[in-house]
Amino acid sequence: LTKYRNKLQIVAEILEIVRDGARKTHIMYKCNLSYKLLKQYLKDVLRAELVYEDKDGNRYTITRKGEVFLSKFENYVERSEKVNRQVDKVNIERALLEGMVSGSRSLHSSESL
Amino acid sequence: LTKYRNKLQIVAEILEIVRDGARKTHIMYKCNLSYKLLKQYLKDVLRAELVYEDKDGNRYTITRKGEVFLSKFENYVERSEKVNRQVDKVNIERALLEGMVSGSRSLHSSESL
Repeated sequence: LTKYRNKLQIVAEILEIVRDGARKTHIMYKCNLSYKLLKQYLKDVLRAELVYEDKDGNRYTITRKGEVFLSKFENYVERSEKVNRQVDKVNIERALLEGMVSGSRSLHSSESL
Repeated sequence: LTKYRNKLQIVAEILEIVRDGARKTHIMYKCNLSYKLLKQYLKDVLRAELVYEDKDGNRYTITRKGEVFLSKFENYVERSEKVNRQVDKVNIERALLEGMVSGSRSLHSSESL
């Protein structure tokens, strides 16, 4: 996962906030989003049925489908971080092998693998 | 791992061939390398002490360090393939989450995850 938030992360944050229902201003404040971006995201999550709004359109609450999304997203983040750590390890192994071929000093550190 | 052979793969192939000693022409034939490339690779593996040559410079044999390289390389290939499969799975999970947000039909296939 990158340092800036991507769309999936922002959607997940919104869903977390509306778990027990929340007003637009509260979501905007908690998510640190401009009003323009917030409106776009709310439109998206409403259309995707991850969130529903009450009759006066002031309060937003997560749907069952939103809960499923959040649960899948948490799994995804966990697996993604695990896989990224494994990719790093494999890249280190590769660098050590390249060091063994080029005969560089990095050979010594490869002994510890 | 990509379809074309990279330097590490070619070095590993050479080391496999010289496990019980082999002549230059045999290595060239088995590795499917041009004579020019073969000479470069032999120079590299000799300098890196992965292979030694007999007195008349005709026969090449793997060294102890070469054996260590091969063993590490096999581990690396195995882990690399495993990690690549995990990266694919994580990317599929991500695509399914994106499908849930965009409200596309791909939502249904996400139920099986």
